[in-house]
Amino acid sequence: MQAEIITIGDEILIGQIVDTNSAFLGKEFNKIGISIYQITSVQDEKSHILKALKEAEENADIIIVTGGLGPTKDDITKHTICEYFDDVLVEDQDVLENVERIFSKYKSPLLTVNKHQALVPSKCKVLMNHNGTAPGMWLEKNGKVFVSLPGVPFEMKALITEQVIPNLRAQFKFPYIMHKTILTYGLGESALAERIEAWEDNLPHYIKLAYLPSLGRVRLRLSAKAEDKVLVEEEVQRQVNLLLPQIEDVFVGYEEDRSIEALIGQRLIAMGKTLAVAESCTGGFISQSFTANAGSSAFFKGGLVPYATASKVKLLGIPEALIEEHSVVSKAVAEAMAQNIRSMFESDYAISTTGNAGPAKGDSDAEVGTVHIAIATKDYVISEEFNFGKHRENVIGRATNKAFSMLQKEILKK
Amino acid sequence: MQAEIITIGDEILIGQIVDTNSAFLGKEFNKIGISIYQITSVQDEKSHILKALKEAEENADIIIVTGGLGPTKDDITKHTICEYFDDVLVEDQDVLENVERIFSKYKSPLLTVNKHQALVPSKCKVLMNHNGTAPGMWLEKNGKVFVSLPGVPFEMKALITEQVIPNLRAQFKFPYIMHKTILTYGLGESALAERIEAWEDNLPHYIKLAYLPSLGRVRLRLSAKAEDKVLVEEEVQRQVNLLLPQIEDVFVGYEEDRSIEALIGQRLIAMGKTLAVAESCTGGFISQSFTANAGSSAFFKGGLVPYATASKVKLLGIPEALIEEHSVVSKAVAEAMAQNIRSMFESDYAISTTGNAGPAKGDSDAEVGTVHIAIATKDYVISEEFNFGKHRENVIGRATNKAFSMLQKEILKK
Repeated sequence: MQAEIITIGDEILIGQIVDTNSAFLGKEFNKIGISIYQITSVQDEKSHILKALKEAEENADIIIVTGGLGPTKDDITKHTICEYFDDVLVEDQDVLENVERIFSKYKSPLLTVNKHQALVPSKCKVLMNHNGTAPGMWLEKNGKVFVSLPGVPFEMKALITEQVIPNLRAQFKFPYIMHKTILTYGLGESALAERIEAWEDNLPHYIKLAYLPSLGRVRLRLSAKAEDKVLVEEEVQRQVNLLLPQIEDVFVGYEEDRSIEALIGQRLIAMGKTLAVAESCTGGFISQSFTANAGSSAFFKGGLVPYATASKVKLLGIPEALIEEHSVVSKAVAEAMAQNIRSMFESDYAISTTGNAGPAKGDSDAEVGTVHIAIATKDYVISEEFNFGKHRENVIGRATNKAFSMLQKEILKK
Repeated sequence: MQAEIITIGDEILIGQIVDTNSAFLGKEFNKIGISIYQITSVQDEKSHILKALKEAEENADIIIVTGGLGPTKDDITKHTICEYFDDVLVEDQDVLENVERIFSKYKSPLLTVNKHQALVPSKCKVLMNHNGTAPGMWLEKNGKVFVSLPGVPFEMKALITEQVIPNLRAQFKFPYIMHKTILTYGLGESALAERIEAWEDNLPHYIKLAYLPSLGRVRLRLSAKAEDKVLVEEEVQRQVNLLLPQIEDVFVGYEEDRSIEALIGQRLIAMGKTLAVAESCTGGFISQSFTANAGSSAFFKGGLVPYATASKVKLLGIPEALIEEHSVVSKAVAEAMAQNIRSMFESDYAISTTGNAGPAKGDSDAEVGTVHIAIATKDYVISEEFNFGKHRENVIGRATNKAFSMLQKEILKK
């Protein structure tokens, strides 16, 4: 069973927003056994939307359309879908009440255009949007399902998980799809591929392997699809068991549905341990990655971003002499930062970063891309020096990923 | 002149990565007057890629293909393009030298698969990739341009700005496209639309208006496209001058190509002023947003993420009695946090956030979604209380945006 995603909105095509909805949809659909055949982003333009709907209907069984459901003139998805289904718009009483409820809650005056949010194609089943005024709409044609959803991410996400997926499950029987992703660090994509070539060549036809290199890591993703869930899971596990001894030296862990920082958090909570972070060159990125996850206050005590060199001295207690002797981007300073932030927050673990993310040299003579990362525990401190290249975004991203890997390694020792 | 983007890779369709390349391409192409007709994401599968190429060739003059150029077996873009152009692969000496140079720099052994990176279609013009081993490839067919680029963002970006765009400019004449985006805060999309309806209806046909609501803000984007650059710019400015008096109370500023945090940074640097941040519920997001921009060390002194309540007392000097009296999520605590962080970092301005991002209640009884944001200067401190709803991601995002708006307002007073 295949689905296709159509995202509508000029803002996507002119690059004003990044389309994150499609990744969410891809992930959620895969979980229940629906592959995404194609993602198509089109303009707020009637003939283009009609063409995309027609092509999607040819390729897929389920067509998910997001965006273009706002109350203003540039939003034309609803009228276009109505035309595609040769239908008329009718007022839905429940949607109207939902719109009125939302406007009275926010004490905003209810305008005619807002009431128009309650107009839906007569043939559609309404998916009530409890987080906004634009309802989801479910339509069917020749056994194919079309779902139109608002483009606002949290409204779309709630509609998908609470209504679209349960409805699809009730209506169709899906094959089982599973993905297993293995994180490696330290070997390039091609060297890794050469090393495991014999294993890869012997994978059964229903298991596909992909290499995903990103910011210093290579992720190996196994994707399997078949009717029998138990058999697929056993075979994937058997293949992983064959693979692991060959990549022991570079294996970091598995990436479940959760990110490495979520996994670290989970593990720290289970251990009853806590974390603090002192970030210079990563500028808050590490803290933000941890706190983005719900429940992070159970292990994350906090962080400091001592961006200016003076604040490393004054607020983090790094001796001026140490900075003068070694420079602010050095092993000695990184280790002192990790130890001091750990004491300040009275945490079990601490991470620190100091480096030069570029593009210009900062308060140190270190080459652009040089980063020192340290991990401190009650008993010891370790650190490593890296060069993450000359692109600021990359340096910050790779330093963050590396800090996660280093911390995970220390945690797994326990 | 229209372009189409094809992004290749199963990882996009299963939602393992978010496609950020397309937004970059959309933005860069728009700057030089090329509209993106469609973005299509397809699987690593030959027949599907061939179909996408054929459809794109029908719609667009320029086809940009990203992804699928790695050295491993799952990367099939190069072979597929070769087939589409009825061509053969030949070894390019310059690319081979580039590959050898990169491998010798990182002291990695050069494998046969890596040497295969130097195989390119015989009809293509090579776009040398100075940041990686997979070259860009420029091909032409019936007056249409096809460019295949690696999917690694920083490799792709460098090839686009340094080679693809200069080549396109040399070969074609483009119309002038401009976008002007006006930021508003405080009025809903539909209320705004009703207020400016007469103005919108009188826009000339070559100026298009879009409403972009996001996390509490509504952005109004004017897009204009015509041959004559001067006339277009004058007309857009004239329309903006007609609009502004109607939205005076909600107008925040313009969004140039740069984000609001980049504009704030630019302005602080021009004023010779500095900033520090104390973030509780935003958990590092504000700091990270500032430090993501190059040159931020010229105004950003640093930040503290006092996530645990105890660290607000110990590290930020918030009196325990104040927290007990008002609770940790309160106006009094937010204002003290902003004042104290400003003193600690000796900055001119400071931002603080304290709130409950959910999903569960934290160290305070405040309702999920409650956030207090304060701005401190040498002379005064102000704060506001908000409720940003019950979705964690939203609460953090809206609190961050609101903090930027509040700070910008204070800075503009000077």
